[in-house]
Amino acid sequence: MNKSSETRVRVRYKETDQMGIAHHANYLVWFELGRTDLCRLAGMPYSEIEAQGVILVVTEVVCRYVAPFRYDDEVVVRTRIESSNARKIVFAYELFDATDHRRASGRTSHVWLDAERRRPVRAPDAILEMFDPWCDGGEVGP
Amino acid sequence: MNKSSETRVRVRYKETDQMGIAHHANYLVWFELGRTDLCRLAGMPYSEIEAQGVILVVTEVVCRYVAPFRYDDEVVVRTRIESSNARKIVFAYELFDATDHRRASGRTSHVWLDAERRRPVRAPDAILEMFDPWCDGGEVGP
Amino acid sequence: MNKSSETRVRVRYKETDQMGIAHHANYLVWFELGRTDLCRLAGMPYSEIEAQGVILVVTEVVCRYVAPFRYDDEVVVRTRIESSNARKIVFAYELFDATDHRRASGRTSHVWLDAERRRPVRAPDAILEMFDPWCDGGEVGP
Amino acid sequence: MNKSSETRVRVRYKETDQMGIAHHANYLVWFELGRTDLCRLAGMPYSEIEAQGVILVVTEVVCRYVAPFRYDDEVVVRTRIESSNARKIVFAYELFDATDHRRASGRTSHVWLDAERRRPVRAPDAILEMFDPWCDGGEVGP
Repeated sequence: MNKSSETRVRVRYKETDQMGIAHHANYLVWFELGRTDLCRLAGMPYSEIEAQGVILVVTEVVCRYVAPFRYDDEVVVRTRIESSNARKIVFAYELFDATDHRRASGRTSHVWLDAERRRPVRAPDAILEMFDPWCDGGEVGP
Repeated sequence: MNKSSETRVRVRYKETDQMGIAHHANYLVWFELGRTDLCRLAGMPYSEIEAQGVILVVTEVVCRYVAPFRYDDEVVVRTRIESSNARKIVFAYELFDATDHRRASGRTSHVWLDAERRRPVRAPDAILEMFDPWCDGGEVGP
Repeated sequence: MNKSSETRVRVRYKETDQMGIAHHANYLVWFELGRTDLCRLAGMPYSEIEAQGVILVVTEVVCRYVAPFRYDDEVVVRTRIESSNARKIVFAYELFDATDHRRASGRTSHVWLDAERRRPVRAPDAILEMFDPWCDGGEVGP
Repeated sequence: MNKSSETRVRVRYKETDQMGIAHHANYLVWFELGRTDLCRLAGMPYSEIEAQGVILVVTEVVCRYVAPFRYDDEVVVRTRIESSNARKIVFAYELFDATDHRRASGRTSHVWLDAERRRPVRAPDAILEMFDPWCDGGEVGP
């Protein structure tokens, strides 16, 4: 499995709903924090990606909810690159609580677009190379 | 295919992001508006569901993004019940623009919980019966 | 008092918090819906304002909360222009429930910026003229 | 001036809008993070406050916006208690950027309510005592 980044965030009061748990739409925002941190760790902060004239748009989101988070709970987001090529990148996420129990997991798929014309493009090599070490998969090879 | 409800909502300025499009997490909120309206149309407003001591918690979300919505665009949400039994209900959504082009689709899965103890329960018959007419499927033959 | 526009919106489930009421930050979003509708009614949709190369940035917000809104409550937003000149515009808001009880009020102040350079500018006359009928004040005497 | 707590938060992509800056409604959420941290530092985490059967509801918010925050900017929230008595508490906030320039300031007023009946109550002494050291004001003389 590819190596992962780790992001810690606390459930905000604003993120709770009247069920007394974090509303499910916030998980997509936490995923976003996770991939932001992975990009930063890879040496390619997302703001720099956009500065290079490309954007990453989401084409698909999947999230599975196992157990809820509550107000002020710490959420540990582990993010990996599941696959990456010049056109498309898929991130995988697992959300753990402070005692390392998995409470949710998900996946987001993205394509690279030219920021100006909003058409699919090949990601700049400089960007893809930064992601390379995150895409090898530990399990490759004899 | 089961019959659908229709909800119209405009993209709020707050819902845009610096790409100039509606942020992808908002689609889950629009899905929620869609199933809220379906429940209301079925004669079982969601507030009444919770008043009966049960809650519907989301166990899985899938969303596919085809083309973006922009600020002030009208979003037409068509919501159907994909499947329903005493334990679980699945809603399906399609998002159209004002010219009836489909821009996104998705699905949310839910289980019924006892509001107090937060344990899985059978949904009250009174609720399930209200959903029945939305679950027949028009295509069921003799 | 200047004439007002009226916007109706229902409290979304996502907008509730664990107190079981609409979180106070959402009121600012409802204010935004209110002034969006006022601009549209004035013949100058906000998207058209931005298309003219200017943006309205918020410089101050005040909101007073009298009684809470709950999930699915209808919120009636009445929006007026409190004052307007070539540099600055102030909107005033009152939020009523479905039985016409006032539950909140507020005010947002904005300055006109050049969209490109983000520097203060005089608003285009075409825009200011559209707002004129909303700024007379009925009470101005001879 | 009373002593302050400090909270650091980064602007989330979801918090930007199509102007390319953090949407103004998010400042209220950052204020909330600030007072959450102050309460925690005071030895009275907000979750514990609610566990004592009281809630703090917002009665007024004021926010002044001086300069915008952008995506991924660090926001430093300095929070103080401006005044506190058995019925009411006022928090004051200043938002700084990473180079210690003030970009916004604000104030939120709150009253103590009985969580069950939602009626004004005197805050429990145990809570008020925890806040005492934050309310002395350095300037109180002999």
